[in-house]
Amino acid sequence: MFDSVRIREIEKLLKKRGAKRVMVQVPEGLKVSVLKLIDKLNEKGYECLLCIEPSFGACDLADKEAKEMGCDVLLHIGHAIFMKKTALPVIYYEYFIEYDFIPILKRHMSMLSYKKIGLLTTVQFVKSLPKVKRFLETHGKEVFTGKNKHSGYEAQVLGCDFSAALAIKDKVDCFLFLGSGKFHPAGFSINKPVFACDIESGRVYDIGKEIKKEEIKRRLAIEKAKNAKYFAIYVSTKPGQHRLDVAMKIKRKLERLGKHAYIVVANTLTKEKIEGMGIEVIVNTACPRIREDSKALGKIILNPEDIEKIA
Amino acid sequence: MFDSVRIREIEKLLKKRGAKRVMVQVPEGLKVSVLKLIDKLNEKGYECLLCIEPSFGACDLADKEAKEMGCDVLLHIGHAIFMKKTALPVIYYEYFIEYDFIPILKRHMSMLSYKKIGLLTTVQFVKSLPKVKRFLETHGKEVFTGKNKHSGYEAQVLGCDFSAALAIKDKVDCFLFLGSGKFHPAGFSINKPVFACDIESGRVYDIGKEIKKEEIKRRLAIEKAKNAKYFAIYVSTKPGQHRLDVAMKIKRKLERLGKHAYIVVANTLTKEKIEGMGIEVIVNTACPRIREDSKALGKIILNPEDIEKIA
Repeated sequence: MFDSVRIREIEKLLKKRGAKRVMVQVPEGLKVSVLKLIDKLNEKGYECLLCIEPSFGACDLADKEAKEMGCDVLLHIGHAIFMKKTALPVIYYEYFIEYDFIPILKRHMSMLSYKKIGLLTTVQFVKSLPKVKRFLETHGKEVFTGKNKHSGYEAQVLGCDFSAALAIKDKVDCFLFLGSGKFHPAGFSINKPVFACDIESGRVYDIGKEIKKEEIKRRLAIEKAKNAKYFAIYVSTKPGQHRLDVAMKIKRKLERLGKHAYIVVANTLTKEKIEGMGIEVIVNTACPRIREDSKALGKIILNPEDIEKIA
Repeated sequence: MFDSVRIREIEKLLKKRGAKRVMVQVPEGLKVSVLKLIDKLNEKGYECLLCIEPSFGACDLADKEAKEMGCDVLLHIGHAIFMKKTALPVIYYEYFIEYDFIPILKRHMSMLSYKKIGLLTTVQFVKSLPKVKRFLETHGKEVFTGKNKHSGYEAQVLGCDFSAALAIKDKVDCFLFLGSGKFHPAGFSINKPVFACDIESGRVYDIGKEIKKEEIKRRLAIEKAKNAKYFAIYVSTKPGQHRLDVAMKIKRKLERLGKHAYIVVANTLTKEKIEGMGIEVIVNTACPRIREDSKALGKIILNPEDIEKIA
């Protein structure tokens, strides 16, 4: 996965920075080939340290760890620039995949009966957009893209930021998400149909059902939370995720409702860390994706916006 | 477990410091009652945050997390003072248990045939020492205690520091460890018999067999490591555990032996964090206890001193 082109690109970036000691950080999917990259960088005289903490996004930088270890630079691979203030210089190396979505689209064009289509994707696939746009246009569609507040690429969405969709919602008949998994396309609720062109299943499908399922799960969680007494409000120490001010407001609100509410702090949330204390509900102020981990964490999980509904 | 006496003691310490916002950190065993403590402190007007990352010792402070969250002080419960430099003021509240070791000793006095006995224990049991000393003396024994480099209490040992034993080794015929588990008493190899007065099994037993078992395991791990190619040298970001200089030396040594060696950085080491990269051996430069987790981590684990033997 780290082919010679990518290794050369990374080397160039490090050289430009004059880096000597480098902390390397990759998302889980790239761990499998990261040692090869490090071998090559070592050969070129760089002293590489590898951060093995999981990295869930550009909000999840190992900048403090890198600084502590005396590195000159953090080489953060796989995500686009996000954080403005960091503990040391960060090189964001975006890991683009030029995936060919056209065969999937060809097979499933009948799904896309709408004329005006808003495209959305995650950072690794932004290079595939022009080809998809052209393909759709030759099929008589009008294609729209918007830009996110946080991220640099046209049509790019984050799990916590769908402004690229909101920006064009009044212009389009439906959205088409290019990528993998249900988290991103099912994550935003806009009163327009959303389709996923999914590389895992190799099909285009209406994500409406998924969105409804998610909504039902959410409503159920809120109902259960109404009767709960012990709430932990989770604040992450990940540099782009800590929102103590939001947590404090929620704490006061829950206390006014007669609940016991505690601010709990951790880098990543796991079942073991929250067990055995009698907590019934976790209010998650970190990455919104964590709400999906309800089963793995063995707790009811609410996101901040859900709290409005338990009053 | 946090009874009114303890809560009052803690309150007094916080008041003396003039703390307003407090990060609370407890070892796993005390998590079960920590919410009660926080409720009481909240009532008194303190704003408490709870660090839910596991804490394995006084070397494992959440001081940086506390500072990031705008706390005035870290209330670190259960361990004696260890770190000299911290990111913010730390209150170490030692959680003493006045455990009565006498009934166990009475039942098993026949085990202790030696005359000159060196006592060792962990911080929570240091208050039980005088009674044990008197008991042994009335049984005709001579009792010795020493002091550790790192820790404040007579006879106290840490997993990484047995100088309390080394200080008296020439004066005694055997050692007697008061506490629980095998990690501490089996962890140091001095050419003297070691007995454990163990509160879990309620017996006194010769730990010699355990020490031998550990040695065999260690020798086997070293033999296996000789044939391995891919080594990760683990450096922890825990404030009292990072030893990058040691790791760097080991890396160079392994490379001279023709091995691939990589410095990997994480707060706590887990199986998931090290999986899928092709690493065969972990050289652990953090807490020596981690070597015991070989099975859970699914890797051969060596401590720095083991590296001397693979050359």
